[in-house]
Amino acid sequence: MTKIPVAILGATGSVGQKFVELLADHPWFEIVAVCASERSVGKPYREAASWFSAAPLPPRIGAMMVSPCEPTSEYRIAFSGLDSSVAGEIETTFAKAGCFVLSNSKNHRMDVDVPLLIPEVNPDHLELVRMQNFGKGAIITNPNCSTIGLVMALKPLMDAFGLEAVSVVTMQALSGAGYPGVSSLDILDNVVPFIGGEEAKVETEPLKILGARRENCIENAVIKMSASCNRVAVLDGHLECASVKLSRQALADELIAAWRGFTSEAQALELPMAPLHPIYYFDEEKFPQPRLHRNLDKGMATCVGRLRPCGVLDYKFVLLSHNTIRGAAGGAILNAELLVKKGYL
Amino acid sequence: MTKIPVAILGATGSVGQKFVELLADHPWFEIVAVCASERSVGKPYREAASWFSAAPLPPRIGAMMVSPCEPTSEYRIAFSGLDSSVAGEIETTFAKAGCFVLSNSKNHRMDVDVPLLIPEVNPDHLELVRMQNFGKGAIITNPNCSTIGLVMALKPLMDAFGLEAVSVVTMQALSGAGYPGVSSLDILDNVVPFIGGEEAKVETEPLKILGARRENCIENAVIKMSASCNRVAVLDGHLECASVKLSRQALADELIAAWRGFTSEAQALELPMAPLHPIYYFDEEKFPQPRLHRNLDKGMATCVGRLRPCGVLDYKFVLLSHNTIRGAAGGAILNAELLVKKGYL
Amino acid sequence: MTKIPVAILGATGSVGQKFVELLADHPWFEIVAVCASERSVGKPYREAASWFSAAPLPPRIGAMMVSPCEPTSEYRIAFSGLDSSVAGEIETTFAKAGCFVLSNSKNHRMDVDVPLLIPEVNPDHLELVRMQNFGKGAIITNPNCSTIGLVMALKPLMDAFGLEAVSVVTMQALSGAGYPGVSSLDILDNVVPFIGGEEAKVETEPLKILGARRENCIENAVIKMSASCNRVAVLDGHLECASVKLSRQALADELIAAWRGFTSEAQALELPMAPLHPIYYFDEEKFPQPRLHRNLDKGMATCVGRLRPCGVLDYKFVLLSHNTIRGAAGGAILNAELLVKKGYL
Amino acid sequence: MTKIPVAILGATGSVGQKFVELLADHPWFEIVAVCASERSVGKPYREAASWFSAAPLPPRIGAMMVSPCEPTSEYRIAFSGLDSSVAGEIETTFAKAGCFVLSNSKNHRMDVDVPLLIPEVNPDHLELVRMQNFGKGAIITNPNCSTIGLVMALKPLMDAFGLEAVSVVTMQALSGAGYPGVSSLDILDNVVPFIGGEEAKVETEPLKILGARRENCIENAVIKMSASCNRVAVLDGHLECASVKLSRQALADELIAAWRGFTSEAQALELPMAPLHPIYYFDEEKFPQPRLHRNLDKGMATCVGRLRPCGVLDYKFVLLSHNTIRGAAGGAILNAELLVKKGYL
Repeated sequence: MTKIPVAILGATGSVGQKFVELLADHPWFEIVAVCASERSVGKPYREAASWFSAAPLPPRIGAMMVSPCEPTSEYRIAFSGLDSSVAGEIETTFAKAGCFVLSNSKNHRMDVDVPLLIPEVNPDHLELVRMQNFGKGAIITNPNCSTIGLVMALKPLMDAFGLEAVSVVTMQALSGAGYPGVSSLDILDNVVPFIGGEEAKVETEPLKILGARRENCIENAVIKMSASCNRVAVLDGHLECASVKLSRQALADELIAAWRGFTSEAQALELPMAPLHPIYYFDEEKFPQPRLHRNLDKGMATCVGRLRPCGVLDYKFVLLSHNTIRGAAGGAILNAELLVKKGYL
Repeated sequence: MTKIPVAILGATGSVGQKFVELLADHPWFEIVAVCASERSVGKPYREAASWFSAAPLPPRIGAMMVSPCEPTSEYRIAFSGLDSSVAGEIETTFAKAGCFVLSNSKNHRMDVDVPLLIPEVNPDHLELVRMQNFGKGAIITNPNCSTIGLVMALKPLMDAFGLEAVSVVTMQALSGAGYPGVSSLDILDNVVPFIGGEEAKVETEPLKILGARRENCIENAVIKMSASCNRVAVLDGHLECASVKLSRQALADELIAAWRGFTSEAQALELPMAPLHPIYYFDEEKFPQPRLHRNLDKGMATCVGRLRPCGVLDYKFVLLSHNTIRGAAGGAILNAELLVKKGYL
Repeated sequence: MTKIPVAILGATGSVGQKFVELLADHPWFEIVAVCASERSVGKPYREAASWFSAAPLPPRIGAMMVSPCEPTSEYRIAFSGLDSSVAGEIETTFAKAGCFVLSNSKNHRMDVDVPLLIPEVNPDHLELVRMQNFGKGAIITNPNCSTIGLVMALKPLMDAFGLEAVSVVTMQALSGAGYPGVSSLDILDNVVPFIGGEEAKVETEPLKILGARRENCIENAVIKMSASCNRVAVLDGHLECASVKLSRQALADELIAAWRGFTSEAQALELPMAPLHPIYYFDEEKFPQPRLHRNLDKGMATCVGRLRPCGVLDYKFVLLSHNTIRGAAGGAILNAELLVKKGYL
Repeated sequence: MTKIPVAILGATGSVGQKFVELLADHPWFEIVAVCASERSVGKPYREAASWFSAAPLPPRIGAMMVSPCEPTSEYRIAFSGLDSSVAGEIETTFAKAGCFVLSNSKNHRMDVDVPLLIPEVNPDHLELVRMQNFGKGAIITNPNCSTIGLVMALKPLMDAFGLEAVSVVTMQALSGAGYPGVSSLDILDNVVPFIGGEEAKVETEPLKILGARRENCIENAVIKMSASCNRVAVLDGHLECASVKLSRQALADELIAAWRGFTSEAQALELPMAPLHPIYYFDEEKFPQPRLHRNLDKGMATCVGRLRPCGVLDYKFVLLSHNTIRGAAGGAILNAELLVKKGYL
């Protein structure tokens, strides 16, 4: 089978590099363009990008010349790891030129006609792209890296028991801030109890994702949300302590069964980037932990543990999700796979 | 003025060493005995203890011979940094022998006639010692290292607005686990979302501390409590994200004013170990942080910041407290100072 | 092909767990026994071992009952991750019973009839086993985790230019100390400039490994050696700064060519655990780095970089080797592969 | 006594902040001007500087308006924490205007008429200022943060036994790279074996500092030098493993006696910033360690330990020096104190 040509926008940045790493051996997609800012254009990718993954830079990509962030007819899928300062406009340009833009940026996430997509959670939201006025192109976004693990863990609970309130405290990894991102002097022997703009995202994005599609729009879910976001000295993997109030009484075993039994269209369609099991529930009381479990199922699984009654709401638990794979590049690739499999291309 | 002779029980352990460090130049107290387990008895303290503080071991204490954990008539105040596996019995023995035991251990904290004391919060609970059947001796405990900062921050809110519910997620320092405590392999590039027994302490101790004294006993406060405890790669200083539901509506400025205006008998009596201000509220949105603020006011202050509305309860905020000073040795010393100043000795 | 049955001694410890992880899918070997101390015997491995690798415990091994450290007729190869306090005697017992013991322990390394083996460096030393008085069994050891990377980097230089002196300063990973090993309180925001017994090993083992085999014994190489060993806050991967004095003048490019051109019988025989290239030389002046390069070629490669003139000796450079793979379990497995391929079994 | 008015150049940067912290309560000096780049000029210091020390910003300095880096007649002493990209020219301008510039920057360190000064080592080099053509002003520099601890440890050895060769491997703290400096993603679970330009400084500066003054110039010491510089995950305190070849044979005890007996004019003159003892030798084989010993004697002491024979040179040992106090701001302040005490002002 001929692979589908794809471009990476913002290819030299930290999310861009993760796209390169994850797409290097993808069974359906082939990188044909690495696009970045003027400073990098015309250089071989290996020189333009300061490659910092432990996975070696694939030589074919390393030798590729960096292109400007302008659409061409070579590809119809573009993965965007662009910084939000420029993503809004460039992504729109690509969509108007007929591209499906799989964006990791916040700019278009809350647009009414843009899917904020998690294939395991709201695959039907993809239909929103038909409302977009971009002709053959469209913009599809994936959620913030702290939102996605939380929503993955909430979805089976909402389906089975209803959700009234969610309180979450995050302990987020350094890679979430990009590179160079957080200064070592700020985080060694320390925690920073603030991440600019993050709490608002975690409190609003889930309502759209868990919302119901009514014809041409999404009716947001009605759940009380509260988020407190912290940066901790962890390289990858966001850990979150969540408490929930359910709409109806349920036993702890029922919640665990809901998580363990959860599967979705993404698994049924055998999308290459989909985790075998979307959610792993751990019985060990010390688990999940970022360093031990972030890479489970290619870094695409959501790990849950420590379910116990909450003295204020109903139940509390711990969840973990890989922020640069599931929460960024891997999530966008899974979205593209759904798009292709469902025949939108 | 002649100083009051004191003993340190469990003097070679990590809390014991902190007692030595903080009492070395104390204006009222003088260490006359360092007591530890049989393994150490008869050795000079400098050999028995593997001193690991950055503050140099005071030579006078270093040369002192380690005694067994048996009461003598040399002193009437004993600070206990004993492990909970042995503290219960030994502390009782010392109290029966006429000693005031200032204990940092969990064993007697919830005994109905034992004060769980924070001089700024419930100084009147000290009266409980009169209920104890130890003759001239008594046991006074200080709370768990995660409880104390939380209760310090809650007290002014309860007094001014009433408290109905508290949800807290802690990010606790490594020194809280003692030495050697947490393996480096477990915590570098990681967070451990579990600390054995900790959540129960944080959910129950505040109810006793914030309870009202009715004659001879404490009537626990009625507050819904929920705690999730995590270990992070920080040396000292427990950071906590708290959400509260108040009994009556209040403006954010009123809460901040309540914290900033908070003072207590401990300050009025000018107890040497008391912080100048019990609570510091920070306006900077990135503060407080463990490494920057844990040592404020000799490590005895509670740092609070980031007050903002909570989507689930009423308000949420961040607090920080030094776990081995305010939350252990320093807290016990402050308790002893109150005891002396109030004439219990 | 039927796989060769093997046992793991000290299977529950940190090296033992690494053996389990690396042998789980080995093309030649199949784990048939996991042996450990009495405390673990009779329990399923998953309960006896506190599994802490990010790689999931293989279910087949997890269900295996732990056996005592006593030889049986089920297998003729035993991998030993035993602590040096017990390894000496137990390994001898296994050898006497007809087993080839691949030991990671220091006890027998310097015995005159025991090969201290690195397949890329001194494969002919394997012949020493014929001098051992164990009948059909034998003991083969692999070097200390700091020695092996150093010797790998030195070997091509010695062959091409001769070696007169080596000065090395190591920055060693935490996993080298086992589990729980180094307390987090000792290493966060710190370096410990001392590792018990380590410097002597690094100064003596290379002389045996680089020595020439004369009939029935090894004539040690004559090289002046100096080692300074430090523990740093790195999970895996020992980094070393080495300076060398060569026997004859050479250009920097010649040294680099010697490293890049280096290959050995282990590669020629296509041993499964052998790295594709034993040595990778990096041109980037910031490389190699533990986190980025420790896992190169399954963690079996030696990474070298920063070759430059030394103002005191001739040249200096940086090297990196994965301490628990190449420097422990992986090295022992590679030794076993050589043993099998050369027909010693 | 009226205090001497002083200015701080580059006051908002990391070295500048350290100057503010150390000079806040200085018995001789009073900060009258905080100078920085245009971006900061006219703002209160508390707003212009992102204060990140755990020591609170002194309110008087916080309220001070930031001035441009232009000399005024208010002061004759200026401490420079300027970045080397601008330090060269600005410092010259201040000197020409009659100021004594105490510079922490590399720009003028190797100028033939500029003292590269350590009061304990080469106080007579201060005489070089008379060779400068700046009228009443002059430039005095302090060495690189890795050089200073090394030279402090070498000086007593050179005086007593002569020095022929020095090989040193450094493990340097993050604060040496300024703020934000090293990305957390580069150093957590890692070591970076390269610091741009650092090795050349450590190999050349000691030769000037240990050189003999011949009338109007310095005759460099003749010592073979080799340095390898690494960045490790430590906040403050450079640890170094050094090996030395002496000119004459000496016993280990003689070296230790030389260190322990070492004192200097800085101590004799009781300069306020001078350490009580310039060098502390530790008998414990695990010491010195950055986190435990960097703040000894106000962070001005050099800590030495682990003296033992070297298999390649004569002896090897470990040393530690606080890089932002002794190796930067504190060193410059001590230089200024010597200047004042010797009547150069």
